[in-house]
Amino acid sequence: LKQRRPKDYHYFMEYQTRWNDNDQYSHLNNSVYNLLFDTIINKYLIEQCGLQPVTSSTDAGADEQHIALVIESHANFFRPLSFPERIVLGMRVAHLGQSSVRYEVGVFGPIKRPSTNDTSQGWSLEDETPSVVGGFTHVFVHRTTRRPAKQMPSNIRQGLEAI
Amino acid sequence: LKQRRPKDYHYFMEYQTRWNDNDQYSHLNNSVYNLLFDTIINKYLIEQCGLQPVTSSTDAGADEQHIALVIESHANFFRPLSFPERIVLGMRVAHLGQSSVRYEVGVFGPIKRPSTNDTSQGWSLEDETPSVVGGFTHVFVHRTTRRPAKQMPSNIRQGLEAI
Amino acid sequence: LKQRRPKDYHYFMEYQTRWNDNDQYSHLNNSVYNLLFDTIINKYLIEQCGLQPVTSSTDAGADEQHIALVIESHANFFRPLSFPERIVLGMRVAHLGQSSVRYEVGVFGPIKRPSTNDTSQGWSLEDETPSVVGGFTHVFVHRTTRRPAKQMPSNIRQGLEAI
Amino acid sequence: LKQRRPKDYHYFMEYQTRWNDNDQYSHLNNSVYNLLFDTIINKYLIEQCGLQPVTSSTDAGADEQHIALVIESHANFFRPLSFPERIVLGMRVAHLGQSSVRYEVGVFGPIKRPSTNDTSQGWSLEDETPSVVGGFTHVFVHRTTRRPAKQMPSNIRQGLEAI
Repeated sequence: LKQRRPKDYHYFMEYQTRWNDNDQYSHLNNSVYNLLFDTIINKYLIEQCGLQPVTSSTDAGADEQHIALVIESHANFFRPLSFPERIVLGMRVAHLGQSSVRYEVGVFGPIKRPSTNDTSQGWSLEDETPSVVGGFTHVFVHRTTRRPAKQMPSNIRQGLEAI
Repeated sequence: LKQRRPKDYHYFMEYQTRWNDNDQYSHLNNSVYNLLFDTIINKYLIEQCGLQPVTSSTDAGADEQHIALVIESHANFFRPLSFPERIVLGMRVAHLGQSSVRYEVGVFGPIKRPSTNDTSQGWSLEDETPSVVGGFTHVFVHRTTRRPAKQMPSNIRQGLEAI
Repeated sequence: LKQRRPKDYHYFMEYQTRWNDNDQYSHLNNSVYNLLFDTIINKYLIEQCGLQPVTSSTDAGADEQHIALVIESHANFFRPLSFPERIVLGMRVAHLGQSSVRYEVGVFGPIKRPSTNDTSQGWSLEDETPSVVGGFTHVFVHRTTRRPAKQMPSNIRQGLEAI
Repeated sequence: LKQRRPKDYHYFMEYQTRWNDNDQYSHLNNSVYNLLFDTIINKYLIEQCGLQPVTSSTDAGADEQHIALVIESHANFFRPLSFPERIVLGMRVAHLGQSSVRYEVGVFGPIKRPSTNDTSQGWSLEDETPSVVGGFTHVFVHRTTRRPAKQMPSNIRQGLEAI
């Protein structure tokens, strides 16, 4: 996992670290990475796969009746990052099953600061080794019964096959 | 405050909202804005004014012996924002005293999505009205005694006078 | 506000601080208090006033069609608290309008540690002065239209009148 | 892991869930559990083993020059918990090496509500099956060089051997 580089991932998200992401040791607290895994994965599912986290029961078709539950999470930590750095996360699908998916997320940084002001202009890294590699496993279940779906919604499967 | 626009602020920070910034009502929880005020203000103090949040006692000169304590915070909420939107914060100094400073932060969004992929290319807004306007007051105190400083460090004063 | 004591409040909630509630200065970050205001206020509304934060549209009667939006928040900070302390929050209604309510929350601590193990046995304080006093204002609006309600739900009004 | 019960753990901490621990699915977000692992483990290390997270370099003896870094974390999720429930965490040492330790934490809840008011009176559970079981691995390193210690501080080893 230590050998992962940005080119191993297929979807990216920049993140401006927050003051309180640092803990008393002045580095990003390990739990913050789990929050960021959730963020890039749900961002991808919502923006690229049509996931609707909250849908009223009346306007939902069969496919929209599913939600994704996390059943397992894991992370390996290699080197620290710190506020106020900007960082970048990369995401790929590690395993795609019938009704479940395991994601892998690599965290890289800091992003080299652009020379002028604060408006970001894409990202480039001085150090391409990962800070953290981890992820979690989603199982798709029916929204109300919370029972496992036979298979995940087709729009989500298509979106996940792409990465 | 509702009349504030981005042009009223002098320092900006983009922020990628997080999955768990949304609360059960599917909008950014009000407390998240306070975390973001802390983030843009400390980012400015550290990157533009030379604030060092953690300094070992041995290599610190007189100026570096101060830390900034929050004595008051406030916010007004005008319209909601939501994950997975990207948003932008603007910051200005509302009042600069001898040993204290009151900051004002405006929160705007969502940022219009660039057409290709996820790499951000600066920001532009469809709606320039503020979502939230708030801030807090810092008092500079001695790191160890926590007693008020006669005046804030000169590098910080210079940085704050600029905005 | 500095004169507030626990006896000035009418509803209480103990809270075990979290590792990452401390920021780099080794004290509870100011924004954490806003998160805790939200927590005690919603706990009271849900457990004592029958608020249901998420209700499907089909099984909701007229009264349940409202949600509470925060339009303003504020806090004053008097002395720091730190993880791993246990603390206690007290809550009262500062102003009760037709469709809005302003809450005041006092934060006290640390709770004196009981002599044996970790199981809490109620709370008592060595220092009864407040660490933080703050709160926010809720306006009740229709869940879907987000327009202000003429008046708040009657079960919530009754619950709020009690404190 | 699903067979874990409170009696399998040796140190306990009650926790009042927070409003924003719930995510849009109205259950505790998975990352919140990682924050809570950090909380019970550091609480034990600080209160029972004498860990001092922040020590100035001048008044520290040899033993105090170490900090604990998280190199790996993991969690398995069995059933959801929700704000405003109170919950309880149990902790044990799963493996104790020379300079590293792997912790296991079980999360149980909700705590049965006491009949009167909100002041907690210890805890009891209706359902003793775990909601989440997980943990992480700490490696002890020198505070400044961040190089692995030959062995962890003796006061910490003693504290960990006890559970």
